[in-house]
Amino acid sequence: MPGGEKDAGREFPRVSVDDACGSLKAMKVRGGGRVARYAVQALRDYATEAPGARTQAGYFDHILKAGGKLKSARPTAFALTNGVNYVLNRGARCLESGGSVEDVRDAIVRASNDFLAYSTDAVATIGEIGARRIKNGDTIITHSDSEAAMSVMKKAHDMGKGITVYCTETRPNYQGHKTAAALAAYGIDTTLICDSACRMMMGDADKAIVGCDAISGNGALVSKIGVSLVAMLAQEARVNFIVAAETYKVDFGTLTGRLVEVEERDPTEIAAKAWMEHNPKVKFSNLVFDFTPPEYIDFYVTEKGILPPAGIFALMQELRNEGNAWSPA
Amino acid sequence: MPGGEKDAGREFPRVSVDDACGSLKAMKVRGGGRVARYAVQALRDYATEAPGARTQAGYFDHILKAGGKLKSARPTAFALTNGVNYVLNRGARCLESGGSVEDVRDAIVRASNDFLAYSTDAVATIGEIGARRIKNGDTIITHSDSEAAMSVMKKAHDMGKGITVYCTETRPNYQGHKTAAALAAYGIDTTLICDSACRMMMGDADKAIVGCDAISGNGALVSKIGVSLVAMLAQEARVNFIVAAETYKVDFGTLTGRLVEVEERDPTEIAAKAWMEHNPKVKFSNLVFDFTPPEYIDFYVTEKGILPPAGIFALMQELRNEGNAWSPA
Amino acid sequence: MPGGEKDAGREFPRVSVDDACGSLKAMKVRGGGRVARYAVQALRDYATEAPGARTQAGYFDHILKAGGKLKSARPTAFALTNGVNYVLNRGARCLESGGSVEDVRDAIVRASNDFLAYSTDAVATIGEIGARRIKNGDTIITHSDSEAAMSVMKKAHDMGKGITVYCTETRPNYQGHKTAAALAAYGIDTTLICDSACRMMMGDADKAIVGCDAISGNGALVSKIGVSLVAMLAQEARVNFIVAAETYKVDFGTLTGRLVEVEERDPTEIAAKAWMEHNPKVKFSNLVFDFTPPEYIDFYVTEKGILPPAGIFALMQELRNEGNAWSPA
Amino acid sequence: MPGGEKDAGREFPRVSVDDACGSLKAMKVRGGGRVARYAVQALRDYATEAPGARTQAGYFDHILKAGGKLKSARPTAFALTNGVNYVLNRGARCLESGGSVEDVRDAIVRASNDFLAYSTDAVATIGEIGARRIKNGDTIITHSDSEAAMSVMKKAHDMGKGITVYCTETRPNYQGHKTAAALAAYGIDTTLICDSACRMMMGDADKAIVGCDAISGNGALVSKIGVSLVAMLAQEARVNFIVAAETYKVDFGTLTGRLVEVEERDPTEIAAKAWMEHNPKVKFSNLVFDFTPPEYIDFYVTEKGILPPAGIFALMQELRNEGNAWSPA
Amino acid sequence: MPGGEKDAGREFPRVSVDDACGSLKAMKVRGGGRVARYAVQALRDYATEAPGARTQAGYFDHILKAGGKLKSARPTAFALTNGVNYVLNRGARCLESGGSVEDVRDAIVRASNDFLAYSTDAVATIGEIGARRIKNGDTIITHSDSEAAMSVMKKAHDMGKGITVYCTETRPNYQGHKTAAALAAYGIDTTLICDSACRMMMGDADKAIVGCDAISGNGALVSKIGVSLVAMLAQEARVNFIVAAETYKVDFGTLTGRLVEVEERDPTEIAAKAWMEHNPKVKFSNLVFDFTPPEYIDFYVTEKGILPPAGIFALMQELRNEGNAWSPA
Amino acid sequence: MPGGEKDAGREFPRVSVDDACGSLKAMKVRGGGRVARYAVQALRDYATEAPGARTQAGYFDHILKAGGKLKSARPTAFALTNGVNYVLNRGARCLESGGSVEDVRDAIVRASNDFLAYSTDAVATIGEIGARRIKNGDTIITHSDSEAAMSVMKKAHDMGKGITVYCTETRPNYQGHKTAAALAAYGIDTTLICDSACRMMMGDADKAIVGCDAISGNGALVSKIGVSLVAMLAQEARVNFIVAAETYKVDFGTLTGRLVEVEERDPTEIAAKAWMEHNPKVKFSNLVFDFTPPEYIDFYVTEKGILPPAGIFALMQELRNEGNAWSPA
Repeated sequence: MPGGEKDAGREFPRVSVDDACGSLKAMKVRGGGRVARYAVQALRDYATEAPGARTQAGYFDHILKAGGKLKSARPTAFALTNGVNYVLNRGARCLESGGSVEDVRDAIVRASNDFLAYSTDAVATIGEIGARRIKNGDTIITHSDSEAAMSVMKKAHDMGKGITVYCTETRPNYQGHKTAAALAAYGIDTTLICDSACRMMMGDADKAIVGCDAISGNGALVSKIGVSLVAMLAQEARVNFIVAAETYKVDFGTLTGRLVEVEERDPTEIAAKAWMEHNPKVKFSNLVFDFTPPEYIDFYVTEKGILPPAGIFALMQELRNEGNAWSPA
Repeated sequence: MPGGEKDAGREFPRVSVDDACGSLKAMKVRGGGRVARYAVQALRDYATEAPGARTQAGYFDHILKAGGKLKSARPTAFALTNGVNYVLNRGARCLESGGSVEDVRDAIVRASNDFLAYSTDAVATIGEIGARRIKNGDTIITHSDSEAAMSVMKKAHDMGKGITVYCTETRPNYQGHKTAAALAAYGIDTTLICDSACRMMMGDADKAIVGCDAISGNGALVSKIGVSLVAMLAQEARVNFIVAAETYKVDFGTLTGRLVEVEERDPTEIAAKAWMEHNPKVKFSNLVFDFTPPEYIDFYVTEKGILPPAGIFALMQELRNEGNAWSPA
Repeated sequence: MPGGEKDAGREFPRVSVDDACGSLKAMKVRGGGRVARYAVQALRDYATEAPGARTQAGYFDHILKAGGKLKSARPTAFALTNGVNYVLNRGARCLESGGSVEDVRDAIVRASNDFLAYSTDAVATIGEIGARRIKNGDTIITHSDSEAAMSVMKKAHDMGKGITVYCTETRPNYQGHKTAAALAAYGIDTTLICDSACRMMMGDADKAIVGCDAISGNGALVSKIGVSLVAMLAQEARVNFIVAAETYKVDFGTLTGRLVEVEERDPTEIAAKAWMEHNPKVKFSNLVFDFTPPEYIDFYVTEKGILPPAGIFALMQELRNEGNAWSPA
Repeated sequence: MPGGEKDAGREFPRVSVDDACGSLKAMKVRGGGRVARYAVQALRDYATEAPGARTQAGYFDHILKAGGKLKSARPTAFALTNGVNYVLNRGARCLESGGSVEDVRDAIVRASNDFLAYSTDAVATIGEIGARRIKNGDTIITHSDSEAAMSVMKKAHDMGKGITVYCTETRPNYQGHKTAAALAAYGIDTTLICDSACRMMMGDADKAIVGCDAISGNGALVSKIGVSLVAMLAQEARVNFIVAAETYKVDFGTLTGRLVEVEERDPTEIAAKAWMEHNPKVKFSNLVFDFTPPEYIDFYVTEKGILPPAGIFALMQELRNEGNAWSPA
Repeated sequence: MPGGEKDAGREFPRVSVDDACGSLKAMKVRGGGRVARYAVQALRDYATEAPGARTQAGYFDHILKAGGKLKSARPTAFALTNGVNYVLNRGARCLESGGSVEDVRDAIVRASNDFLAYSTDAVATIGEIGARRIKNGDTIITHSDSEAAMSVMKKAHDMGKGITVYCTETRPNYQGHKTAAALAAYGIDTTLICDSACRMMMGDADKAIVGCDAISGNGALVSKIGVSLVAMLAQEARVNFIVAAETYKVDFGTLTGRLVEVEERDPTEIAAKAWMEHNPKVKFSNLVFDFTPPEYIDFYVTEKGILPPAGIFALMQELRNEGNAWSPA
Repeated sequence: MPGGEKDAGREFPRVSVDDACGSLKAMKVRGGGRVARYAVQALRDYATEAPGARTQAGYFDHILKAGGKLKSARPTAFALTNGVNYVLNRGARCLESGGSVEDVRDAIVRASNDFLAYSTDAVATIGEIGARRIKNGDTIITHSDSEAAMSVMKKAHDMGKGITVYCTETRPNYQGHKTAAALAAYGIDTTLICDSACRMMMGDADKAIVGCDAISGNGALVSKIGVSLVAMLAQEARVNFIVAAETYKVDFGTLTGRLVEVEERDPTEIAAKAWMEHNPKVKFSNLVFDFTPPEYIDFYVTEKGILPPAGIFALMQELRNEGNAWSPA
């Protein structure tokens, strides 16, 4: 291997692009950052083994198709889109500057490794920056499970800030149970509550911290269903509402008018099959995400620093000026 | 039986006052109105069979004690308190005006029957008044299960208004499942959603209608945990938020400063025992009610008519002027 | 004529009830108070000449029918409804207490005269009370034309307060032209503006004063289309928004859920016939009234004093306690 | 003395009405309740010694004049106005029912004593009702000095609630120093802050409690300059803002449009004479009161119970229905 | 013609600069974009025929003067200012880099043609980006007539989205009649309403879309009188308020404190001459524009993409960094 | 002296770095800009006389240490931090590019002189830009004393705008007395008021203008205690709230999560020693600064132009892109 190490930062077993797409579609891999790393790793693994092609262009064409497949497996996962685009852009530039097949392959692998390392480091950096904003003895409300939000809370705990956390159970899939278990095991004073109890507990809270699936150009947040309720309640109670988010979650499509369709999941997540058969006339709606408008968000903690929702547009300008849709540089 | 019919409007089997208190404490009977009728019926049944007493005062003393027990079985159930007080006041007036033991017993039974009939009629009247405010094709969001709120929706359906209803599942006890089943069975187009999806669906809604556990002097609402979230979301989306409530749910104690303690229920309603044992450090909080401030409420529909939260104080003045804490007159 | 003077306070020429209904339907008579006085006078005139009837009940039956016709000529004119009901109630009480045909007739005439005098006096009283709230040099915005609102402004001018008034033109029927002409002729510094310029002028205003077609139980206002915009703008600019309204404009039906249908007028008020023929695909909507929510209203000035929107429910309680739906007593 | 005791509840030394008026004008007596009691006592003392008059009417005329003088000594002290009017009304009724000079005198003295006792009891009752709304460990912000507000805090302390109080210094006259000294001496944990530091401390507060000079018909508050800032800050921070007020502070004049002129005090309260002479071009403004709109007030604690600002109009209706402008009955 | 084509994209007949200034002052040409193109074309036409000058500097001096005249013809038309400045800047750079008279002329003509093409393309691009944000079946409210706003609605119609549009008549000049006629003729379901009916219709709307005369550095909008009312009503009803605007409408002067004076037009637009003569004391105010604060605006659709009001400052930074006050690059 | 003039723009007498640190700690020098200039001048003076060092690196090390001392003398004075960092960065770049000791010294002196001139010019430029936003006859409220805010008001006065100013006294240190004296002496119509009277006067105001101690990345303001109250009141009354601030007051630390600790000053500023000894149980809190959230700020006037709070993040990006933490370029 002349260039980038092909197994650097391996987090997932080696799979084919098609299998990776299947897993992505079935949501076997979850969480914005993990999904992006999973796809980028699959793309890297594919690049290292891509079928021989006589020309650089031919080779890169294979890579482009693989990248396209991975992106369309989860069209609303902007972290995945941005991650794969970053890798493809680096490959394209190598091709344009006359690189050989080997050079292009090497560029793809190095770019993938850069992304994987960046993504992992970003979670740690967000934890460090975010934890500085936590005060000793703060009570924090969180919703669903998020690598980046948990990183902030764990780091604050590591700093001895003695925090208390309320986790909403996060129906229908109880991601809050997972978060509560992890935080309590980490030594943090953790209480599990129903989603609907959030307003009563907000009176005792100092901060609300959540994760992110996508960030719109106007600073709005796409996140797990229920996050926008927590945001409204925080706003009402004058509690700081903080979003922990890697910058590769920005959605450039919002700048040119793309409307995001929110995915509907299976009703069996809400009601038991037996109950459904017993009440055949009852319908179900089971949306996965909701939207939080920028006026309910105090700030984003990213690996590039803290910024208010009003700064997202300027951040996206900066990212675009760096020559890619998204760039870690 | 010289006066009131001792079995008028029987809704519950005959039980002793002590057993009634046990059932009340164990929450085997639920819903503000039903709880009140259950306690008043138990008091009536006790009055018809109360042990011999040589004097009217002695007899009434037994009744007073029974009433006190029933009230203390559910101290935050203001419908029960007001219902029992209404019966006791009528007995007391009879005693004061020189009635015999039989007269007092008769007054108690008649007052109980009046209350039982009043309570049942009130639900129907609320349905009729409230349904007039529903427009053809309205989409309604409801939370938990409420006799009075359902009465409004069923009556609107009866009037051919073609309504659509979203029921939140109402964790932790899934009262929304019960409501959804009942409304769908009644022929109403009904969709079940998670509590946390309420903000997304509010965009499609025209009205939100909920029931009531107690009304404060400033027009604030005490109701099932989660109601205040629905109210906030309705306010944000400029959707009318309507409370269906019998007037005997007003809490006169709020006029003299009483602070209401919100009951905590068992954590097993939130998490399975096995999960709890597996995650012993996780704590739980499980509050039963929450508070909705008057500025989030458009109006109350009562059996005495529609009134804004700002009118509750005047309603309570009127009820007090009628000579009792609460009076159906 | 044994009792009330049959020509007291004559403001309109004598017409039959049927002709009066015709004029009302065609909106030849306008303005809440004038419409009420017109109908009550027609009822009085009818009563003095009603066809012979052998019995008091027979006679009163004629009157009831005439009153019913008048009320249904303008079903959303609550001043008319309340005025006619007041007269009919007085007649009914006379009948119930065993009065003769002559007694009933006399009661109807006296009640009519009382109403007519009350209505006229009310406008003057509102002017006096309202004018006290105007400060020297105040700039006032008004919309449409209203007897009561003009009474306040004229009285303030009479008191030498040196006010300035902005009148919106009030499309589509330019009632603002009429108001501007009247105020300027009265000696008040008056400027006519477009409805759409209201926000720019609000920055210079100290008060906004408008009239009223109906008052709901929650303190909301039904008034000329455009009033609710003025109210919102006043609220935004922290300018006092004041409604001048006789108490007989309260709508008791709102307490029992009646939904008010807003009348649509002819599109020729908006566009010329020629234009419409030239643009046959363009549709038109021409609503007469709009609704102003209570939170945009600072206070009502009535002939019974000043009250906040939150006091309307208590006022309606008081009016009902006086034994009629509405009563001037 | 045939009737009321002429020295009952003496709180101030005996002075002539003219001297009392002088002291009132010079603000030697301060605080709404104290001012009212001072004037009523002076009126009582005058009544017991009023010069001989041949007729009851003549005697009462003296009393009326004395009452008028006292009222005009502090025209914006509505507690004084209501207190004196209460006494005069009782005298007038006695006169109308044909009482002798002695009867009228006796009625005046009894009415005065009733008022004095009522006023003193009211402060204690307000303390008891208000203290129920304080929670253990509450942090309270207060402004200026108020008998009634202090009564709530002291009672809460007596109940062992372990409260903490922040007192603003209350420029220009440092009434907050007086309050801080009194509360700290009473054993309450008390911190003195600058008026301008109020927003920073509000973040730690649970309640804000202030006194009252007058209550308008719409529920607005007239109180010491600076109270409206505390109210706004409490509203912003979602801290309960509570007004402790005897019901005789309602201002009936607001129902008929009276505009209150806010008194200006001497500039030497703001700057030293030497500084003023050194900077002769600097002007000064020194207003005594400000207005707090009803939307910033959570509730009033009165001796008749707790009521929201929206209930003040209904309270004033009730007080008027009792036959006087204000009545303790 | 050595360089740019002198008749490229001709939209207006050839006129002298002085005549063009006359037409601009008389507002014979209307609409921000059209006015800019009109002035730039006149400048180009002048440049191609400018009187002989011995030196490049002399020649350019003529052009500068012509540009200055055009800019001062409509000092508040920022599109015109930015368009003319763009052309002049390109000329100046050519001059500075030592170009001949012919070179400078050519630079002016090319720059003009670039601007004309850019302006025309921008309207189409705005239509495409904006139309993506429209949902199937959306009901849209618009005010006045705007090329760019109409472009969005027509494009959405072309995409088969089945939209419905409410057009306000837009007093005093009825631009809404023009818009309604155009949209209906295009096949869109279009209803004309009075300006004052806007609040009632907003309840049925999903979006409000308007055009733009200028954009301030803080994201505020200067547009046709009445636009700010539509914006407030949209905000109240939670309806998206969207501004369609070419980026050359930004007003750089707002960054250095310039205050915009709003033009007053002739009162005969409001009232007929005869009416004015009949009511000589009535005054008139007839402002052309109003200001919409950024908090009422959801986003701008520009030819460079969608951006929130908070992004305007960053957009202006970017435009300045490109070396001109405004640049299409 | 080969390069920069060592006495250019001398504003303070020459002191040693240690003495300068002492004066800074004792707050003998006040005001963000003056503090920064004081420290930079001390650094320059030190650089000109720094002890001989054999190497450039050794020499610069002395300068770095001196700069570090100065920065830690007032850790929350971001103007000082940014000013000193600017000078040190210029020195470091000279060192990196191989400059001699003399070159480095010269770079330090020149950079210092550049900063001193920039700071002085900035105040004048802010005055000019800000004064353009003042209208003829505006009434302005200001709090505390600020070079930059006063510069705006004086410049508006110079332009003949006839402004009126209300100065709050600014307890506890009466900086408002100083401002009032200066403005009145300058010929401006100036009135001194208590801090607590601010809400009553805000009704008469057109603008509020204050100075700045630091600006956060989200556009929030750190300023003298009480500024945030003025901001809230301005927001409530729809009065423009304007901050006059040099750009070197931005706090880059807020982008990476630094929490600012607000300094507590001695309680003797609030109460006399004698009073404190007499009331030993009373505690005191005396914070120096407060925080104003961006939603209460209309715009910042800086020497680089006007920008809304939402533009601060983009300004900080721009400043960082220029290669320093802060740069006047």
